[in-house]
Amino acid sequence: MNIENINVSVYPNSTKIYVNGKLFPIKVAMREIHQYPTVTIENGKRVEYPNEPVTVYDTSGPYTDPDIKIDINKGLPRKRESWIADRDDTEVQPDISSEYGKARRDDKSLDAIRFPMTHKPRKAKEGRRVTQMHYARKGMITPEMEYVAIRENLDNEKRGIKTYITPEFVRDEVAAGRAIIAANINHPEAEPMIIGPAFSVKLNTNIGNSALSSGIEEEVAKAVWSCYWGGDTLMDLSTGNNIHETREWIIRNCPVPVGTVPIYQALEKVNGKVSDLTWEIYRDTLIEQCEQGVDYFTIHAGVLREHALLVGKRLTGCVSRGGSIMTQWCVEHDQESFLYTHFDEICEILNKYDVAVSLGDGMRPGSTHDANDRAQFLELEVLGELTRKAWQHDVQVIIEGPGHVPMNKIRENMDKQVKTCDGAPFYTLGPLTTDIAPAYDHITSAIGAAIISSLGTAMICYVTPKEHLSLPDLNDVRDGVIAYKIAAHAADLCKGFPGANVRDDALSKARYEFRWKDQFNLSLDPEKAKRYYLESRRNAPDADDRFCTMCGPNFCAMRISQDIAGSCSES
Amino acid sequence: MNIENINVSVYPNSTKIYVNGKLFPIKVAMREIHQYPTVTIENGKRVEYPNEPVTVYDTSGPYTDPDIKIDINKGLPRKRESWIADRDDTEVQPDISSEYGKARRDDKSLDAIRFPMTHKPRKAKEGRRVTQMHYARKGMITPEMEYVAIRENLDNEKRGIKTYITPEFVRDEVAAGRAIIAANINHPEAEPMIIGPAFSVKLNTNIGNSALSSGIEEEVAKAVWSCYWGGDTLMDLSTGNNIHETREWIIRNCPVPVGTVPIYQALEKVNGKVSDLTWEIYRDTLIEQCEQGVDYFTIHAGVLREHALLVGKRLTGCVSRGGSIMTQWCVEHDQESFLYTHFDEICEILNKYDVAVSLGDGMRPGSTHDANDRAQFLELEVLGELTRKAWQHDVQVIIEGPGHVPMNKIRENMDKQVKTCDGAPFYTLGPLTTDIAPAYDHITSAIGAAIISSLGTAMICYVTPKEHLSLPDLNDVRDGVIAYKIAAHAADLCKGFPGANVRDDALSKARYEFRWKDQFNLSLDPEKAKRYYLESRRNAPDADDRFCTMCGPNFCAMRISQDIAGSCSES
Repeated sequence: MNIENINVSVYPNSTKIYVNGKLFPIKVAMREIHQYPTVTIENGKRVEYPNEPVTVYDTSGPYTDPDIKIDINKGLPRKRESWIADRDDTEVQPDISSEYGKARRDDKSLDAIRFPMTHKPRKAKEGRRVTQMHYARKGMITPEMEYVAIRENLDNEKRGIKTYITPEFVRDEVAAGRAIIAANINHPEAEPMIIGPAFSVKLNTNIGNSALSSGIEEEVAKAVWSCYWGGDTLMDLSTGNNIHETREWIIRNCPVPVGTVPIYQALEKVNGKVSDLTWEIYRDTLIEQCEQGVDYFTIHAGVLREHALLVGKRLTGCVSRGGSIMTQWCVEHDQESFLYTHFDEICEILNKYDVAVSLGDGMRPGSTHDANDRAQFLELEVLGELTRKAWQHDVQVIIEGPGHVPMNKIRENMDKQVKTCDGAPFYTLGPLTTDIAPAYDHITSAIGAAIISSLGTAMICYVTPKEHLSLPDLNDVRDGVIAYKIAAHAADLCKGFPGANVRDDALSKARYEFRWKDQFNLSLDPEKAKRYYLESRRNAPDADDRFCTMCGPNFCAMRISQDIAGSCSES
Repeated sequence: MNIENINVSVYPNSTKIYVNGKLFPIKVAMREIHQYPTVTIENGKRVEYPNEPVTVYDTSGPYTDPDIKIDINKGLPRKRESWIADRDDTEVQPDISSEYGKARRDDKSLDAIRFPMTHKPRKAKEGRRVTQMHYARKGMITPEMEYVAIRENLDNEKRGIKTYITPEFVRDEVAAGRAIIAANINHPEAEPMIIGPAFSVKLNTNIGNSALSSGIEEEVAKAVWSCYWGGDTLMDLSTGNNIHETREWIIRNCPVPVGTVPIYQALEKVNGKVSDLTWEIYRDTLIEQCEQGVDYFTIHAGVLREHALLVGKRLTGCVSRGGSIMTQWCVEHDQESFLYTHFDEICEILNKYDVAVSLGDGMRPGSTHDANDRAQFLELEVLGELTRKAWQHDVQVIIEGPGHVPMNKIRENMDKQVKTCDGAPFYTLGPLTTDIAPAYDHITSAIGAAIISSLGTAMICYVTPKEHLSLPDLNDVRDGVIAYKIAAHAADLCKGFPGANVRDDALSKARYEFRWKDQFNLSLDPEKAKRYYLESRRNAPDADDRFCTMCGPNFCAMRISQDIAGSCSES
């Protein structure tokens, strides 16, 4: 595959920095944004006051480190490999073990599209559990736990900002099930990150091809692009061709945890015939993906046979793919869902690789009309039951949530989820706060996402402008990620997350002082901010003018205000 | 001017309808969106079930009525002229009376850019007050009051949706100062609309040139464009050349109320020298604009001399143009603001034309850091005092609010405003919930706008993607309006505004039934929704496929769900 098509570059006026661990020999990646000095004229002389660099959370991985040579055909450095090996509770398997994985490997016709490097899969030793939750419950602090503690704090210590986040706190939250570190032992390329209400709000992006569109190269480009703009995790929702190979390329080159919905691929294996789905096929799919390194699985195990009856009462029925597949299976077989009946077995697979489970909300409302109805909340009860079951197996859990919810019904979702699922992190899609704006659903849903995450939702799943209409292209991914970075950050500010205001205050100060370049560089999308500015400044590009185009040179409120402040500060 | 450059067309599959008044011979304009039937196969036969048209609030005026011939050079039909004349409390003046207006009229060099039609200004007869608040307090119901009552209700009566909005209710809200109908007697082209927490949330758009950009034609195009997409009121914030003439073109062609900030023009008249500003120049500007037909004035009369001291304590000082001008004036003259000391006189001018006052928040925070600080809330106290004063003169009042506010501080703004200003409608700019996303501030602020309007803010002032960077072009106006339509509508849904859910439910039903065209037509931006859809359907344009591109043909959750519902509905 051609690296030329991977659209990333370093961030402007920024440096990749690495903060050393104190407990472990780890290097935590962050981004430092440099600033220009504040310039004033004092007694007729130009005086410069330096502005400290601002350290921000960085999801882009090695792609923005000019010292690391990226080769898409080799995959990213396997940062966590030694940490995992050092624990000595796993072993490298002699071969992959899923039937499907073997068949794909042996299919010569796939050679041309296959990821060229192979890594033997790793698995827990017999009788061992290798999940972060397992370690946390034993009282252990892992390198992953220290990594996320340092990562969440950025430069708070240097700034003297008080924080409650320590490796011990991380361990306790993971042990209690209130946070997860999704980190499959077979995805050592990913940098550890944490999802929980006590931590900064995270955002997930969805990519993936469908029968109508998109090749492997395009999907890898989207994955890297998503990380560049700020996606914290990535779901590969492919339902088209070569799902197995596409996933391998993505995982090997993805610096953030990767999630999937295994039932999609299982259905492809039976050529889309729901009634042909079996537990055995699903089980083989799980193992196939565990061995590839998927970090979390969406499993719609809360959709039960009895829920089918409730679907007909809704305005928009069941809009979850996984939910509708399982409902159809239950109806056609007149049996309880195999995801539900085999849930213990699923957990026993997952804890061998540390794959987290994201309990899917197959009954999420597909319209504001259906929000908070009986089908939705009945399923949530089942998810609570499954959460406790997963925890018995030391499997980390997050709970998926809606969907389409008017603002007045958002809080009930959060409150019920916390209570029903014993504090397991909530992971919501939006919610969209109105249904009337297709082509702008990144906005209808950013409103809901900001509100629900300010109330405690730990991760929000992005929605792009193309939602309901088409698959997102690179521009849509960028728009969706930025809208959700905004929602997540607004929630962090609202919750008073330690240090959340540092970047806002720095950007506001730069804005007030007409340090235009700093304003761009500190923003979520420096390229676009600069481009918009320059469109109105064709004659004076890059000028640090003491006015902006809105007011024009004669009329700048901020300049007047500065002049007044200068003249009043003594009085 | 060339009509070809005014970018509007009728809405797709929609009809302009007019609902007759019961008290007055008025015709209330609305838009009816037609729908295709629901098609099912029953016993092997195709059966069609009709879907009722959906009636929506329409701000586009005559531009979307194919039966009305638009001529930008003549202006819109003067719908309210006879209503005003019939009240017999105003008289047409023999001539315009502002010095500046006369000077511009007599300047031959302006002939080429002058609006070609002239209308003599109308004014209250000696000793009369002609405001809607005055009439309401007398117990009168005006045609304007009946108009807005019908307009707010849409087709609720036909649908059997209970509503509390009657002409009597409108009158009582206006009398109490809890709502305003901004309707200058010299802007009879505008359709009456109401701003108050008991009514649907409204949105304002800002346009206007600056010294760096934009001619008259471009500004008129933006005004019409704003109304087309859903702007409820329009502020002309021009600070560049030919402000007087630009405004005349806009007002004569604008079907919604127009607001201005008269201090901007006053400052232009003294060539930008703040210290040269006088009450006399400001007063002449007010009269000039009252006679042209401006419907509401932003007046920063709450910025007092003492506030200057507080500006220096902020991270971003004073970011309001009007606020900074008045602060500078107070400091330079060491006098109290003439807007404050002459406020009674201002009100006595305004009630002769029914111009509402929008009390400007000169001390609004320019960063989340400065939100809810002493300067901001001290000014709010003054705005409360001025509200009560304006009401003594029967002048309608709205109160402007911030700005930049993190989510956790939004409610305090609303609560304090209601209490301090005795329930006068709140009109907020956003607020932006974070400062880190220039180029996306329509989103950072739509989040805040949705929240604050769900708490009772009556009107939200849009922010475009270009905020802080540049002046908006047509695309930015569209993006800003739609983001704010979303925020306003999400708030209406949240508040349970009568009938607010009708459009959502219709669109959701269309979506579920794969009536793609209806989904587009019912949306806030049919053109963009359709375009996004077709981008992925190049081979089958306009096809009413039973799947969408996200899932592809083999995998549609909604189709599966429908099939299940069909098979389960008997059980």
